[in-house]
This record gives sequence, structure tokens and C-alpha cells, in this order.
Amino acid sequence: MKNFIFQNRTKIIFGKQTETEVGAEVKRNADKILFHYGSASIKKSGLYDTVVKSLNDAGVSFIELPGAQPNPRLNLVKEGIKICRDNGIKFILAVGGGSAIDSAKAIAVGVPYNGDVWDFYTGKAVPKEALDVGVVLTIPAAGSEASPSSVITNTDGDFKKGLTTELIRPVFSILNPELTYSLPPYQTACGAADIMAHIMERYFTNTDHVELTDRLCEATMKSVINSVPAALSDPENYNARAEIMWASTIAHNDLLGTGRVEDWCSHQIEHEISGIYDVTHGAGLAVVFPAWMKYVYKTNISRFAQFASRIWNVEIDTYDLQKTALEGIKRLESFFSSIGLPVRLKEMNIDDKRLEEMAEKCTGGDRYTAGNFVKLDKRGVLEVLKLAL
Amino acid sequence: MKNFIFQNRTKIIFGKQTETEVGAEVKRNADKILFHYGSASIKKSGLYDTVVKSLNDAGVSFIELPGAQPNPRLNLVKEGIKICRDNGIKFILAVGGGSAIDSAKAIAVGVPYNGDVWDFYTGKAVPKEALDVGVVLTIPAAGSEASPSSVITNTDGDFKKGLTTELIRPVFSILNPELTYSLPPYQTACGAADIMAHIMERYFTNTDHVELTDRLCEATMKSVINSVPAALSDPENYNARAEIMWASTIAHNDLLGTGRVEDWCSHQIEHEISGIYDVTHGAGLAVVFPAWMKYVYKTNISRFAQFASRIWNVEIDTYDLQKTALEGIKRLESFFSSIGLPVRLKEMNIDDKRLEEMAEKCTGGDRYTAGNFVKLDKRGVLEVLKLAL
Repeated sequence: MKNFIFQNRTKIIFGKQTETEVGAEVKRNADKILFHYGSASIKKSGLYDTVVKSLNDAGVSFIELPGAQPNPRLNLVKEGIKICRDNGIKFILAVGGGSAIDSAKAIAVGVPYNGDVWDFYTGKAVPKEALDVGVVLTIPAAGSEASPSSVITNTDGDFKKGLTTELIRPVFSILNPELTYSLPPYQTACGAADIMAHIMERYFTNTDHVELTDRLCEATMKSVINSVPAALSDPENYNARAEIMWASTIAHNDLLGTGRVEDWCSHQIEHEISGIYDVTHGAGLAVVFPAWMKYVYKTNISRFAQFASRIWNVEIDTYDLQKTALEGIKRLESFFSSIGLPVRLKEMNIDDKRLEEMAEKCTGGDRYTAGNFVKLDKRGVLEVLKLAL
Repeated sequence: MKNFIFQNRTKIIFGKQTETEVGAEVKRNADKILFHYGSASIKKSGLYDTVVKSLNDAGVSFIELPGAQPNPRLNLVKEGIKICRDNGIKFILAVGGGSAIDSAKAIAVGVPYNGDVWDFYTGKAVPKEALDVGVVLTIPAAGSEASPSSVITNTDGDFKKGLTTELIRPVFSILNPELTYSLPPYQTACGAADIMAHIMERYFTNTDHVELTDRLCEATMKSVINSVPAALSDPENYNARAEIMWASTIAHNDLLGTGRVEDWCSHQIEHEISGIYDVTHGAGLAVVFPAWMKYVYKTNISRFAQFASRIWNVEIDTYDLQKTALEGIKRLESFFSSIGLPVRLKEMNIDDKRLEEMAEKCTGGDRYTAGNFVKLDKRGVLEVLKLAL
């Protein structure tokens, strides 16, 4: 086990009807806010009205910025930064999924910074301060509700880049599983793949002696695997929705990575795919992860055999761990397929034309590698993409 | 799953040699502190010197208050309160196990309060403010390093009472597993029983649909069960010590209880035992918990069968869940025995003379009940104590 620091300040307010508390919770932090959200869906569901009423009741004034979309765009972030500056706003409320939250986080670091906020995403600059962000979550997937991360797409070049800093961990996140009843099956499944991926990026490590975090990862994965089919067959199954929602937060609040080297190669590769093709992040992960596994599993067959045994109940063949390992990967693929996700690029209508370009971008033209479990160079990334075809 | 709020502000600094960072970490919070610790053991181990050097290097001045002891005493707390008041101290550093930390927390709430600090423990008053507390942990057991709780003994009447308030959750806790190498086997085992008990108090619930937290509880228990024998046979096994230390924090940082009604009956009963007989808390729990289980398991045989199967690998007899459930309790008892703990009161030289008195105190003379899984009245507590004889 490696040395680590773990701290997570986010206050989680979880359960039925908790969105009605948003005004009172915001009021502890600010009187005037940017209210940032996505599409028309929160208006259709009535959530918009509930949030507005709660803010009004608490005496919080707000300016609205709608339009946050999947793979959130830098342009909208810049618009948000301008609104906050022009109006002396110090707090951003994001209502939505990872896109609205990531976009809000980008605005939060951009407001007090004199340069271009994109600098933080390219690594040109490191943020020193940020506005506070609060969240009402509608999609369990990204884990952004309690994470220190934000991923933004710069359409000027199809770049999708991430930023991680404690400054942008939300001060509170309101999680009401009822708000996820209206999620279409495909989005529920994509969320599940994202949650699974956040755990697997941590699970596949070469750090020795990490039994507790291994088991915590397995606990969270198994709960997701059991709950997603229940939520798909009965979208208003509160308890299944609740298990998934709480799992999404735990998967990505840093607890599961304590004391171990994390990987994140599959996420990096997927960012290149959704940066170009604008596919749903979770679907992209469902395609990339099994391909990545097939390419790297020989590095640590025991770990993949453990994954197969403890997650998928594959009986361990002690004479042939490789067979056990491969069966685990196969079952992951079957699980993704069974919940309606693609597991090959072609299922997303992506062919081999731009694989080289993606591998190039993912490794900065071989100036750096992707991942830690195995450090993949450009050729390695390309091989994974080919296995995903 | 029930609605819940979860927030844990404590910054965990975990790993080898991390105690050398204590001065810098304190300095973020205060220039002048109360340095509270227990016995001579931190002087013998060299930890005292390391902490003093780190505080000096960081320019933190301190006043020492040694003497914190197992089942920490109200008298010493009052002494600490006086020192802080007389010297304008606003921060308390606890170096030790749960006793030093709980004692420091009591001082922290006592300093800004005009009345008797014991009022907070009897429920006569509710704390509104507190000094900040930081921790260097030497015993993984109580979980006080990231919990909002403190337990104090008032020797004037042999009362042991607890206080829970967010105000006393430590701002930071430094956890170096190397500091636990010198723990005697009995204390290591008592710590393990305390950790297991913190999880089991949450695990045995009647709240339905808590799969994720069930599995997180099981993950943590299994890691403890696997690591303790390794630490006992090789006290300087860093990884075993590390698993136990991180498990002790996770067991009691509130994550494992999210969304479920917790029990806490066994703790309440044990507090009466150690309030009178001054036995080690963990040993008391190893005696009380199996007795409590035998008294209540019929309330929810399925849950006890799940415990037997998932924790102790007992094959579930679907025709006789009661048999499965009882086998799980038996294996818990065997585990405690195997690591050198008592599982009966007589092994701690406690006879039946004061059982009635303990049951009386535990239930306020039947004015209230103990626990939630089953709400035990005085007679019920007495029956558990008899089963523990």
C-alpha cells in the first residue's frame, strides 16, 4: 500500500425530495448565484420549477445559464465566466449530470483567472482559486458530484481535456434517486458503464497489498451489476436507482483509489473517441475497456483472475489462470451488451479511418504514454483501438 | 434505503513517516496548541520526540497535557479545559489512540462552554462551538480519528457516556501504520474487535435494500479478519498493519451507515461493563457482541445467514437458515478466541453480581431502550449479559 492523502469535503444530501432543500443549502454559501443547467429535460420533469421555487423561498437571486450539453463545450464555459464577472457572482449551482457539473466547475476556476480558462485543461497553468459549486444531480454516471475533476471539450480542434484540483470539489451535492426515474434506458446503461469504468480504472493496479480497497471496489461493482438490470426493467424502482446513484458517487470520490496507483488509460482513449465523434462517454467506455483489457491482461493475470472470480463468479482454474482471466473479460462484455450498450466501435458507426489520429492525440504524438497499469505508447493505443473495432 | 446526509471533513494523511508532517499540518490551523497524549509509550517509542521536533520546526508553541488513559476521565478533561482557557489556546493535538482523541474532543467542546462539559454527555446541553482537533493515531481501534464522537468516563458514579457532534470531527488525522508495530498482541486484537464491532453495529439493521453498504461493510470486515492474524504473527508486517489502520477509519467514518438505521446496543452494554470494571473496550465488545447476536438473531435470520455466508464462508443451508445463522455467530466467536480475546465475562473475571446494576444503568431504569435492531428493555439487556457470562 502506498502513502496517500484523502479528504473529501462534499456534503451529500441523499434521498427522496431532497431537491427541495437546495435553496436553503445554497443560502449558507451565497445570496446571488449562477444557475447552470442543460437542456429542456429539467423543465419537462418539473425539477426546474422546484429549484426556482426553493431558491426564491430562500431569498437567493440567480441568473440562468442553460445549454450545458454532453461533452460540455468551452464556448459555453466562457459565456458563464463573463456572466459571473459582470454580475459579481461567487457561487454556481449546477443542476444536471456530469456535463452541467463539469461545465460549472470550469466556470468556477475561470472567473478569478486573468488568462484563458483552457490553460488549466492543457496544463499551461494551475488554478489557485475558484468559486464554490453546488449540485443537484440528475444522472448517476460521471461522479463529478463529489470529485475534484472536470472534463471540457474544445471544439476548436476536437480536444477533450480534464482538470483535477481540490478547488472544484462541490461544497454540496443533492442526490435524489427519484430524479433518475425518467432517464431513458440507454442513458441509464451508459451511466452504469461510466461508474464501472471509474472503479476499474482504480482496480487494475500493480500496487501490491491493497486488499481493503480491492474489496471496496468489488463491493461497489457488484452492487451496480445487480442494480442496473432492476432499474432497466422497472425504471421507478427506488431502491435500485438509489444503489446506482450512491455507487456513482463512491466510485469516483477518491476513496476507492486510496493507497494504489490508478490507471486511467481507457478514459484517455475514450476522450479521443468522444472528442471526435461526440458519442456518449459511457458507451465509449463500454467499447474501450474490454479492448484495453484484452491488450494488457497478461501484465497481471492474477489480478484479472481475481476480477473474474470475485466480480463475475467465474470458478478459478488454478491450472489455467489465463482462461479464468479471459472469461472475466468476456463476462464484462456480455454484461455491457445485456444492458444495451455497444462493445465495438462499429456498433457506434465508427470505422478505422481516424484510429491513427486518435492514438496520435492520446499520446501527444508519442511524447507521453497513456495509463499506468501498462504505459501505452502510440502503437499500444492504436492496438487497443483496433481490438475495439 | 433511507434518506441521509453524509459529510466527513477530516483530512487523512496516511503512510510511512507521515508523523513528521504534523507540525506543518498544525501550523495551517494554529500557532499555539494543547499537546494531549497518554502514557509513557509515545516517549519510549520516540514518537514524542518526532512530534516535538516537527512542532518546533514549524514554529508551533505548545503546552503538554499527558495522562489520557483508556476509558478517558472527566477529571483530566476539566484540567485540559482550564489550561486552554488560561492560555488562549484554540487547537488541540491528540497523539495516541481513541482515549487521547476522545479526551481531546471533550476538551474541545468544553473550552467555549460556560457550564459543566459533562452536560454534553448526559444530554443536558448541546454544544454550539468547539476548538479544532488534530490527531496522530497510534492505535487502530476506536475510529475516533475521523468520527464525530467522543466517549468519556465520569468516575464519580462509574458512568461512561458518549457525545456525537460534527463539531468534534478532527480537521486532520495522521495515520502511520509503522506506529502500530509496537502494539502488544492483546491490544492489536482488542482494536480489531472494536473495528469489527463498529461495522457490525451498522450491518445488523432492519432497513431493507441496502446492498451497497452491506457489501462495503463486508469488504471492510473481511479485510480485518484476514489482516489481524498476519499482524499478530509478524508485528512489523507493514501491509497488514496498514489494512487494519485504514479499515479502522472507514469502519467508523459514517460511510458504512449511510441510508440505514444503525444498532449500537452492544456498545451501550459494553460501556456499562467497562464503566464499572475498566476492561479494555474491544475485549468487552468481543464478549458482548456474540451474546447479543444469540439473543436477537431470530428477528432477522436472513441477515444473520448473509453474515455467515459472506463473511465466514458458511454454506447457506436453504432448508435451515437458522443453522446457517448460528454457525456464523459461532465463527465470529472462534475468530475472537483465535486472536486471544475473551468471549465470556468470566474470562475477564466478571461474575453475575452487578449484571442487574448494568442493565439498570443501560436503560435508565427502563426509562429507555438500548439498540434499534431490537429495542432491548432492561430485561433484554440482562438476558444478553447472562448469555455473556
